[in-house]
Amino acid sequence: MLGAIEAGGTKFVCAVGDVSGQIIEQVTIPTTIPEETMTAVIDFFKQYELEAIGIGSFGPIDVDTESPTYGYITSTPKTAWKNYPLVQAIKEAFPVPVGFNTDVNAAALGEAAFGAAKGLDSCLYITVGTGIGAGAVVQGKLVQGLSHPEMGHILVRRHPQDSYTGKCPYHKDCLEGLAAGPAIEERWGEKGFHLVNRPEVWDLEGYYIAQALMQYILILSPKKIILGGGVMKQETIFASINKYLAELVNEYVALPELTDYIVSPGLGDRAGITGSLMLASLALQEDDQQ
Amino acid sequence: MLGAIEAGGTKFVCAVGDVSGQIIEQVTIPTTIPEETMTAVIDFFKQYELEAIGIGSFGPIDVDTESPTYGYITSTPKTAWKNYPLVQAIKEAFPVPVGFNTDVNAAALGEAAFGAAKGLDSCLYITVGTGIGAGAVVQGKLVQGLSHPEMGHILVRRHPQDSYTGKCPYHKDCLEGLAAGPAIEERWGEKGFHLVNRPEVWDLEGYYIAQALMQYILILSPKKIILGGGVMKQETIFASINKYLAELVNEYVALPELTDYIVSPGLGDRAGITGSLMLASLALQEDDQQ
Repeated sequence: MLGAIEAGGTKFVCAVGDVSGQIIEQVTIPTTIPEETMTAVIDFFKQYELEAIGIGSFGPIDVDTESPTYGYITSTPKTAWKNYPLVQAIKEAFPVPVGFNTDVNAAALGEAAFGAAKGLDSCLYITVGTGIGAGAVVQGKLVQGLSHPEMGHILVRRHPQDSYTGKCPYHKDCLEGLAAGPAIEERWGEKGFHLVNRPEVWDLEGYYIAQALMQYILILSPKKIILGGGVMKQETIFASINKYLAELVNEYVALPELTDYIVSPGLGDRAGITGSLMLASLALQEDDQQ
Repeated sequence: MLGAIEAGGTKFVCAVGDVSGQIIEQVTIPTTIPEETMTAVIDFFKQYELEAIGIGSFGPIDVDTESPTYGYITSTPKTAWKNYPLVQAIKEAFPVPVGFNTDVNAAALGEAAFGAAKGLDSCLYITVGTGIGAGAVVQGKLVQGLSHPEMGHILVRRHPQDSYTGKCPYHKDCLEGLAAGPAIEERWGEKGFHLVNRPEVWDLEGYYIAQALMQYILILSPKKIILGGGVMKQETIFASINKYLAELVNEYVALPELTDYIVSPGLGDRAGITGSLMLASLALQEDDQQ
């Protein structure tokens, strides 16, 4: 049996399941302080005989296995979790192989294995919620280099009628600064779910996300693009994205029919936890090879 | 012995060499019409006993081995080469494994094997010349999905003082449209090498390239960035790139010292042909595994 943790800024989803992505038992634990949250996480897993554990975590995190701070959550604004050795805490309680990556990379892996990109060796998973993040599978592997991608902070061109300054503390009007949930709320004065009948809100949202997709497509050429997260529940954004993206690409690269290419998660809200199960499975495989 | 072709819009560089990247013999053949150029290419290789041939080609090209037009140069503006079956032409003359990818992907592979990114499993190679293109190695493999990347056409934010409309026939003011050699010439009224003593030219060039690097870094997180091509011989651009990139990133992601991170090709002008030799070597390995 495998363990999986989708470690988020508001909740930790913990599950046990198998290599086929099947989830057998699942609990949700609030993200408070590490002492409290991690005790509950460990208590849950203690009930099972686990072969490996996979963690898809909020970040930034250190994914470089050569680094002395490998397995840490690093510079998060959630101060109690800053420089917290998440992998080490799990390994201390469970001496089994532990897989560790970003929540969005885990979701990309889950979608490639069992979701909207099932059977493909390439996909991009983007979440648009309180932040914007993305993970990518390229030639069957998660994109990783110096560190994990930070795709939510790419530059976009400001809409000529948009005078909102942007909310990112690092870049002001990067993609996340202009298009994540908190930016929508600050620009329009209300939370997204109160703005359902304001088409201009979702048109502008699509304008920015389309630019991001243009960059991702030209750089990664993903075989499927999956858009999840709270903001994307507003399905009208998809039509806006497709309209602006077609204008931007201008037939320079050949893409599949956009309504088939840019889709919601096939696993719904289970993409992250299913992908974390896959991280456990990969950690087990790697351990067997050693 | 291995054969390598760096197929460019103005010349085909052909070489024979070995798996260690050593080039034994090399010739340059002008790119005229396929009948003429390819006859000379084949005549050169006929002198040798080859085990495999690697081709790094100008594009766009079809790199999808499942596609009926795999191995073709596709929608190039060079009409004589449009829809030309380059791999098939080589395979007809030489019944050996043939590796095929973009010129910039080949260069990235060459730099990762023997150049500025030697020993790394991740790098990005960008050429800034008559066009802008880039190739990337991620976790030891070339980035490929739906097709090969087309990173030269990403969107950038226009400099507020730059009123030049842009030269890209598809996107007008994308990166290539604003920053490739022909754009420099059209904006300033002279070819780049006549503009050596105009610092504003190279400052603006760095302004645009830095934006591109920001996007590439956030999406791919490469371990080394290598900038080649005719325009980059103007070395003052590197300082401008570093200045603007540091402002853009604003310490959001941790990067190595920029002067060590963003460098010229370690192989100089041999990156492409050496990488093509690596494509031959990979094709041979794959063939052996089958």
